[in-house]
Parts: sequence; C-alpha cells; structure tokens
Amino acid sequence: MIRISLDLMGGDFGPEVVIPGAAKALERHPSVSFVMFGQQEKCAPILAQYPALREKSVFHHCEIAVGMDEKPSQALRRGRYKSSMWKAIEAVKAKEADVAVSAGNTGALMAMSLFCLRTMANIERPALAGIWPTLKGESIVLDVGATIGADAQQLLDFAVMGGAMARALFEIERPMVGLLNVGVEEVKGQEEVKEAGRLIREAGLDTINYYGFVEGDDLGRGTVDVVVTEGFTGNVALKTAEGTARQIAEYLRAAMSRTLLARLGYLLAKEAFDRLREKMDPRKVNGAVFLGLNGIVIKSHGGTDAEGFAAAIDVGYDMARNGLTQKIENDLKEYHARHSSSAGPEAA
Amino acid sequence: MIRISLDLMGGDFGPEVVIPGAAKALERHPSVSFVMFGQQEKCAPILAQYPALREKSVFHHCEIAVGMDEKPSQALRRGRYKSSMWKAIEAVKAKEADVAVSAGNTGALMAMSLFCLRTMANIERPALAGIWPTLKGESIVLDVGATIGADAQQLLDFAVMGGAMARALFEIERPMVGLLNVGVEEVKGQEEVKEAGRLIREAGLDTINYYGFVEGDDLGRGTVDVVVTEGFTGNVALKTAEGTARQIAEYLRAAMSRTLLARLGYLLAKEAFDRLREKMDPRKVNGAVFLGLNGIVIKSHGGTDAEGFAAAIDVGYDMARNGLTQKIENDLKEYHARHSSSAGPEAA
Repeated sequence: MIRISLDLMGGDFGPEVVIPGAAKALERHPSVSFVMFGQQEKCAPILAQYPALREKSVFHHCEIAVGMDEKPSQALRRGRYKSSMWKAIEAVKAKEADVAVSAGNTGALMAMSLFCLRTMANIERPALAGIWPTLKGESIVLDVGATIGADAQQLLDFAVMGGAMARALFEIERPMVGLLNVGVEEVKGQEEVKEAGRLIREAGLDTINYYGFVEGDDLGRGTVDVVVTEGFTGNVALKTAEGTARQIAEYLRAAMSRTLLARLGYLLAKEAFDRLREKMDPRKVNGAVFLGLNGIVIKSHGGTDAEGFAAAIDVGYDMARNGLTQKIENDLKEYHARHSSSAGPEAA
Repeated sequence: MIRISLDLMGGDFGPEVVIPGAAKALERHPSVSFVMFGQQEKCAPILAQYPALREKSVFHHCEIAVGMDEKPSQALRRGRYKSSMWKAIEAVKAKEADVAVSAGNTGALMAMSLFCLRTMANIERPALAGIWPTLKGESIVLDVGATIGADAQQLLDFAVMGGAMARALFEIERPMVGLLNVGVEEVKGQEEVKEAGRLIREAGLDTINYYGFVEGDDLGRGTVDVVVTEGFTGNVALKTAEGTARQIAEYLRAAMSRTLLARLGYLLAKEAFDRLREKMDPRKVNGAVFLGLNGIVIKSHGGTDAEGFAAAIDVGYDMARNGLTQKIENDLKEYHARHSSSAGPEAA
C-alpha cells in the first residue's frame, strides 16, 4: 500500500485543484492512502465533496501556506517546520508517507526538501528530473532546473540517478543514457560535459548503457531513455519545447479556422485532432521528481488542473511502488564502492 | 547593387543545391550579382543550366573543398587561402563582395571567418545569430552556437550586435532585447546573466530597449525582438525547438492518416495544412549570421535544398542592403565611447 503526502495549499489554485486531483488518482489506484496538509477552513469544504477520498485520507491543519512568489530563503524562514509544504515533506522523512507531492513554487520546494530530507550519501546536489514525451514514448531529462551549473562528477551522479529513475518508471533493465551537448563529435562542448563523458565511460556502470553525446533535437526523437544536463540548459530546453508546442498548436488552430473547407475538414477529423491534443497535452506528463534526496518529492506544475495534478500523483505512485530511493541508493553505492577515490566532495 | 560571394562546395550537396538556390534568389533580387568559388568540373555543368545566373556571376576555380566533418583546425590547415570557403570569405575582406554565404560546416566557417575577417574593435568573440519564427513574426536569437560560454561583457556585446541586426532586418528603430534565463525574478540564474542584465541596464543604450529576463517559452511567443544567450544554451534551445516541431508534425501526420474520416478531413483542409507546413518549414528561416566580424558571413544549414539556400541568400541580401556591419560598428562605437572603461578585454 502506497501512502502519499499532499501539500494541499501548493499551486495557483491550492486545494481546489489538489483535492479533485487526488480524487482522480485514487480512482486509478484504489489502494493508495493520503496524508494531507493544509488550511482547515479552505480545505475541509472541498474535501467534504469527495467522500471516497476523505475516507482514505488523514487531514492535518497547517496555518502557513507558502506563496508561489516567495523566495526560497523567505519560504524557509516563514514556513519551515509548520507550512503545509514542509509538513508534506516531513511526512516522508518520518516514514508516514512514501512520497510527497506539491504544486508549490519550485525554489521553495527544493529548499525545503533539501533541508528536511538531506541529500543521499555522496550526492552534493539534488536534480529535478522531468518526463519528456518523445516519438518513441517517454524519456527522462535532468536537471530541468533544481540548480544552475554542474561539474563532471555531478553530471555523472545525474546519469546514475536518472538511470535508476528510468528503471523504476519504464522498467528497463539498463536504460540508455546520453549527455546533452552541442555537436556529437567528442571535440565540441563544455569542458564539464566532455569530462563527464569520460568519467561515465570509465566508470563502466552496470546499471546504465552510456550512449554518448546527444543534441537538442534528440530530446523529442527519444534517442535515449535519459538525457543528462545541468539545470540552466535543461530548464531552457524544457520551456523552449513547451513554448514551441504551444506555438504550433496556435498555428494549427488558426489554419483550421481560416476557411469554410478547413473548418469542415476539422470537424471530420475531429477525433484525430482530439488524439493529437491528448498527445500534446502537457498535463499528461506533469510531475517532475527531485532525485538525490533521502525520500521522494514530486513537483507538479503550479498552474495545472485536477487532471494534471493526478498525473503528478501517478508519477509519485510509480516511483514509490518501484522503490526509486532504494534503487538510486543501490546504484550510487555500487558506483562509489568501485570508485571510492572519486567520491563527491560533500558526503552528506 | 549587392554582390554576394558563394562557397559552391559547402553543404551536404554542394553545387547541386547552392547553384539552383542562387538562381532562385536572383529571381527575387534581379539586381544582385555573384562571385562564386568551387571545383570547376563539378560546378560548370550545373551552372550551365542556369544561363541567367551565369550571366550575373563570376566563377573562380578552387581545388580544395572543406569537408562537412572536418575539424576547424584541420579545415584551416588544409583550406586556408585556397578552399572555396576561404575564398568566398576573402572576397568580402577584399571588398569584392558585400556578403559571403556558405552551407559548409559551422566550425570551419567560423574559424575561417574569424581568421580572415577578424573581429571588430572591442569584440572578443563573434556570435552566430539565428532567425526564430514566433507567434508575432520573427525574432533574432544569439549566440546559437559560435562559441561555448560568454561572460557578462560578451553578453552585452551580443545585445548590441543583435539589436543592430534587428534594426537591419526588421527595420525596428529600438528593438526589444531580452536575456535568456531561468525564472524571471532578478534573483535566479547564472551569475554572468545577472551581471549582464545589470551592465545593459546601466549602459542605458539608445539603440535597444532592454526588456529584462526571458525564459525558454518566450522564444516561440516572440516576447522580445532579440534574445541573448551564450552559444551552448542557444544551440540546445534551437535544436530542441526544431526537434519539437518535427515531433509534432509527425504526431499530426500519424493522427491524420489513422481513420478514413481523418483522411477525408485532411483532404478538405489540405490548403490549411499546406499553409501550416509552410509556417513550420525550417527552410524559410534558414540563414544564420556571424556577428562581430569585419564583414558579413551567412551560414546556411548544410542539409537544406535550393529553396532553403535561397532563403539564406535572402538574409545576406537584407543584411548587406541595410548596412549591418556599419550599424553594428556604430552601435558598438557609441557604447564604448560612453563606457570607455568597460571596453572588452581584447580590442582587435
């Protein structure tokens, strides 16, 4: 039985989206139970509308809700130990939940998760791993914005952690891992990326299959199962892809409403368009995972709806069910046992 | 009258694409003349098929053609002073042409352009500026891969140069310029980007309108006229957008051929789909510009066809006609006159 802790106050709409989202997720995973944190007066009336969910949930009142615009330092000062976001994470630490899900602001969620759960041994920095829809299915891309910059050793850690997540999520034994670079020749690119390629090759990891360098257009192609990059580039790539998808959807909408014939064609092909819309629906791939912490925390888009939040819970469910944290710990242990001299600079 | 020098041997298909491309461009700009460089035995038979073009062109035989996979250092060693690529660039230096266009490999073209034309005063590094289709029209994005990494002063130079290009290409008096970052709050992002934002603000440039930070999804939205970033991130963003566009086109194709009704709808709306295809056609926005050199060099995609190559010539034509080099020089001069203490570290 998987237990999920929820920050009901996170996101642009708080409990109005989080609670219906949890209800949807419960329909798909009836064995799940929830630990919920939020402001009583706002949450109780909504929760009352979902009796099946209420029955599988324990609700805890929290006075403080972290604002979507609060800086991490400010959120920590105001919300540590007592906000709904903190409490949801703390439930994972206290083993009262297997995974925490929040649609709260990324910086605050990252700071609180780091402060509360701490990084795993030998991991200096956590990464935020996103799920990327591809022509072949889905890939994992990390870091999509937890921290700016990464040295070669950190990129190697990302490769190991991303590999473990791919094994947990896609159930592939030895996922194909690539390093994001410009140009595929060994001579190009940033020094850290080149060095990381050398480190990963030399490490000869059993848990992943190192592919080499990939480029921006390999993301949508699904060339590899896991794409590793530092948080600045990963975040720009993610948002660029989202922006491009919206841009093309807008072109398509405009093209299809321009003439009578186009509108008629649209009506006939409506089912196909609906299918396409579903394929391009960003809600379906909502739910990024903080990797490298002693516990699983899922970040949902702040502006998503109930369907999107339910997708984030689905990701958390899969991660917990497949023992993500344990997989990462084992993979890191195996690597560091073999390469004890090259352990990260800050063992937690 | 604009004179354009062409590297006939560049690109995956060499003269088979470059010559028909030039013929197309000539139809659009009948006053243009060409200086062409390539291997006589390969080029002459193709050129013979385009009598109108041949009449407006001077052809020079070059024994050496730079390979698409040659490393910059290798290309320089083998092709300096004598390859078709070098000769096309040299024609700009010798004032025999106003702009050079090549579909040859980016690294070699960059190295040869730098070596032959040298950077402008106060410019340490050139940038490759791409034209990005947006919901509002087009934007300029730089650097899309000339060099990896950029410090704050270089990002400021990119802003000035990109602004000058926007004035030349879009004929906007004071283009809106944004710095690519993650998150729009002043606190986030790389140190260089933050510092560049401060420098640009303080510079109080008359030639551009500084917008502030933009994110990946602002690229397709067309939030600003010029997006400034260093070459690694810019290249990843560009290729990610191209990959996403291809991915969605593939989804659309699959959706529209799945059922009889969808196929019928597609036929009815065919004109709309053609229009969409044209909107998404990467050939239409082919032609990136090396900025910061004492002369204009246009890089065409290596894999493009005649239509695409003609688009790259169009960009060169516009840049030359609107006096890009002069605009950049003036804008840089104005900036450096006012901020003589903060001049770039390597005045050429």
